[in-house]
Amino acid sequence: MAGGVRSAKLGFLLWLCFSTLGATLGGKVLVVPVDGSHWLSMKLLVQELVVRGHEVVLLVPEISMLGQGSAGCRTELYPVSYTKDELDNKLKQLKDNLFLKLPKITNTLVSVQRLIDYTSIHVKGCENLLYNREVMGRLRLEGFDVVLTDPFLPCGSILAETLAVPVVYFLRGLPCGLDDSGTQCPSPPSYVPRSYSGNSDTMTFPQRVKNMVMYMIESVSCRIMYARFDELASRYLEKDISYKELISHGAIWLFRYDFTFLFPRPQMPNMVLIGGINCVKPAPLPVDLQEFVDGSGDDGFVVFTLGSMVDKMPPDLTKAFLDAFRKIPQRVVWRYTGILPEDVPEKVKIMKWLPQNDLLAHPKAKLFLTHGGSHGIYEGICHGIPMVMMPLFGDQPDNAKYMVARGVAVVVETFDVTTEKLLETFNKVLNDTSYKEKMVKLSTVQQDYAIQPLDLAVFWTEFVIRHKGADHLRPAANNLNWIQYHSLDIVCFLAAIVMTIAFLALKCSLFCARKCCERVAKKKKVL
Amino acid sequence: MAGGVRSAKLGFLLWLCFSTLGATLGGKVLVVPVDGSHWLSMKLLVQELVVRGHEVVLLVPEISMLGQGSAGCRTELYPVSYTKDELDNKLKQLKDNLFLKLPKITNTLVSVQRLIDYTSIHVKGCENLLYNREVMGRLRLEGFDVVLTDPFLPCGSILAETLAVPVVYFLRGLPCGLDDSGTQCPSPPSYVPRSYSGNSDTMTFPQRVKNMVMYMIESVSCRIMYARFDELASRYLEKDISYKELISHGAIWLFRYDFTFLFPRPQMPNMVLIGGINCVKPAPLPVDLQEFVDGSGDDGFVVFTLGSMVDKMPPDLTKAFLDAFRKIPQRVVWRYTGILPEDVPEKVKIMKWLPQNDLLAHPKAKLFLTHGGSHGIYEGICHGIPMVMMPLFGDQPDNAKYMVARGVAVVVETFDVTTEKLLETFNKVLNDTSYKEKMVKLSTVQQDYAIQPLDLAVFWTEFVIRHKGADHLRPAANNLNWIQYHSLDIVCFLAAIVMTIAFLALKCSLFCARKCCERVAKKKKVL
Repeated sequence: MAGGVRSAKLGFLLWLCFSTLGATLGGKVLVVPVDGSHWLSMKLLVQELVVRGHEVVLLVPEISMLGQGSAGCRTELYPVSYTKDELDNKLKQLKDNLFLKLPKITNTLVSVQRLIDYTSIHVKGCENLLYNREVMGRLRLEGFDVVLTDPFLPCGSILAETLAVPVVYFLRGLPCGLDDSGTQCPSPPSYVPRSYSGNSDTMTFPQRVKNMVMYMIESVSCRIMYARFDELASRYLEKDISYKELISHGAIWLFRYDFTFLFPRPQMPNMVLIGGINCVKPAPLPVDLQEFVDGSGDDGFVVFTLGSMVDKMPPDLTKAFLDAFRKIPQRVVWRYTGILPEDVPEKVKIMKWLPQNDLLAHPKAKLFLTHGGSHGIYEGICHGIPMVMMPLFGDQPDNAKYMVARGVAVVVETFDVTTEKLLETFNKVLNDTSYKEKMVKLSTVQQDYAIQPLDLAVFWTEFVIRHKGADHLRPAANNLNWIQYHSLDIVCFLAAIVMTIAFLALKCSLFCARKCCERVAKKKKVL
Repeated sequence: MAGGVRSAKLGFLLWLCFSTLGATLGGKVLVVPVDGSHWLSMKLLVQELVVRGHEVVLLVPEISMLGQGSAGCRTELYPVSYTKDELDNKLKQLKDNLFLKLPKITNTLVSVQRLIDYTSIHVKGCENLLYNREVMGRLRLEGFDVVLTDPFLPCGSILAETLAVPVVYFLRGLPCGLDDSGTQCPSPPSYVPRSYSGNSDTMTFPQRVKNMVMYMIESVSCRIMYARFDELASRYLEKDISYKELISHGAIWLFRYDFTFLFPRPQMPNMVLIGGINCVKPAPLPVDLQEFVDGSGDDGFVVFTLGSMVDKMPPDLTKAFLDAFRKIPQRVVWRYTGILPEDVPEKVKIMKWLPQNDLLAHPKAKLFLTHGGSHGIYEGICHGIPMVMMPLFGDQPDNAKYMVARGVAVVVETFDVTTEKLLETFNKVLNDTSYKEKMVKLSTVQQDYAIQPLDLAVFWTEFVIRHKGADHLRPAANNLNWIQYHSLDIVCFLAAIVMTIAFLALKCSLFCARKCCERVAKKKKVL
């Protein structure tokens, strides 16, 4: 028998060796990315995995904005049934009316509808992949150790499930709080602001009412938004499974935030915060740009970009900006691809693309004029540059609110831009030193890591490879339904017991009282 | 104005330099430890802080088990009004009846009462310190950067509050879930087992009922258990503050657990998990002990200790153990200070103290016979040694349940020990390879750190020194009362609106119906 124990120990030591060896030799990673800005930070992790000796396969639809993928990765392209024009059209729809003032409820509904339209085309692409026997056959033979994906689209999760490979999620968050449900993470509406609510973590009574109403609406909107995801998952996996249930199988969730950006809130053990992963060491600027910003004197310069989604603006808006820029002492570097008037002043440098992180890292950078995407916000925080924010859509209005609540930014509504308002805002942020002071303080806290976010992301991806998942971090809450999770059945049961006891006690008392009365009555009769 | 911005930037860079310099030069740390096993792991952090150049002052009552403190620390002793005998007596009471079978409810009530008695004497000691003008005057002049304490006793928290210094907590947990309330950490009773419940994270309906009842009892028992803490805090700080509210000011909570030990559950951002901090590199064994364990052959040896709280056992119990040890092929190293029969076999080595971690790290260690203290459990996990557990009091029965649920241990009840039962259990754990296999797997997962627990604990203590706290991690939930936190006011408000609307709709319908009927009746009359 002792021999059995010995051989078990030996077996396990060998297993341990191979596990470690496996990690050293590198695992096999299937990356299922999401187009656009979602890819920006994930690319950093993918590149680092390649550097650390992992074999990375990038699974990309033939028609995509991702282009040729990433250096060092093998790219596996799969055919899709939509055209480039269709994709561009859906993307264009997302950008429509960005500068128009619509009633908030209309704006939200229109945004949700466009998001559904946009994801629908990708769900179609995903379907093309899953039912492509040739590609799927090849993928099945690869023997992947882990799937790395953004659950914003369903392909990666379904693939991981069908290939029986653990999955690592990489995301900023999911619409309608599906990330909370997927991770079983408590999110009390009393102090966790809901998306689109415009609330911070400290709310008045009416704000809490609004937050609660939005919290309740979320569960309905989730069903609508993810209906196609649910249907595809159930149909392909041939079992009754919702998308929420599917993503709850995620081994590790790498979230691109921390609490210099979001407000402190509950977390779950398999949620790993890698906010600031995109704050990389600045690269040298191109010579002409370096000269331009170096020459900005003591007043420094403003970095202005509304992200890759905005390629043009209404002419009165561009005019307002140019007029305001003329009246501040700072130079301006502006990423803009639309038509501009001919009298753009020399102090404004227009670029089709700008190295945002490298510019913000320049010691003369004074102000960041941004739409409030999470990447840009983190670059602003890392380099301690206060912000003027013009949120456009998605999570940007919320992001902007978070920064305003920290006293490091001021918001200008896109539909409310005038030269005077811009000037007033610029002067406020540039001259009121509290913005800079608070931003530097926030930056110091944000940059004070126990371990760099990129290293943390790599560690947990490799952890999942080494241990074939992270089962010890999966909460048992996943096995409970909504009623059980909230102990509503138990509360009702206990209430029923209490009420039964109270009822019986009352009945007994009444019975005793009646008996007493009868006896007294009898006695009186006898007397 | 631009000059203002410049000077602000310069000021902040200087501040940044000094912050970093401060961290490099070392901060000034006031350590307020708790006696007994609580000190074992905290000592490791304290020693590491000394190594890293921090000035550490250890604040210890004159009468204590801590003795002369820790190397490299300055120890500040303060007089107390209780005697050594009184302290020993309270400690002795805690150990009484450890081997008697009492009804569970009696056992729990007795344990709680003894815990209150034991902490009361320390509260008295704390009062002696706080009202000692000389010592307090000296402490005020020191200019500490951080207080490091275990909130199991109230002294450190009150000191931190009165000295206006941020506080780092170091603990395994607090009785009656006060750590959850103090951190505002959600703890759903549907899958988070309550202390003393004997539940795991997966419960049947009756178990969930029990868990919920114990959850409700906790809030009442907390009031009783911490009544003296509440009173002292309010009286000394001269404001109406509960102990729960006081500890909620904690900057960082270093918890000595992780999810190889506890079941996955929600966390808060200022909770840092440092489970396994006590798994240090094994030191060489004393020569005679080394020879004894080396000579144990292929069968190896058993490590047996019930912790420092158990100095003696009933004679029939020691006899049962010795008889069982005679019948297994393993040698035994047993920490025991009580009286033993004269016929202790040579294969059993009795020691007054044993180097537990170093022995468990020995390749011939086969089984760990333990009471289930969290320190021992982590040493068992680290070195992958399956366990037979004899939980005695406090968190030990719960700890044992967690290990049993993972298939790495078997429990023997202290009041139920016979030679046959022991033999059966030993043979089960030694010969059924699944215990060893699961324990090695658990060990591999536990030891796979992104950052060593001790380094993590040091990092966060230094973080608090550098940033004078960790305000960005403090949840806004701290500003809400119980009703607000659970949104009960909002639910009632929304329910009232819905009911009013429903009532009005009903009234309108009835009104319309009546009008309709009247019209029909009139028509009929006319006809």
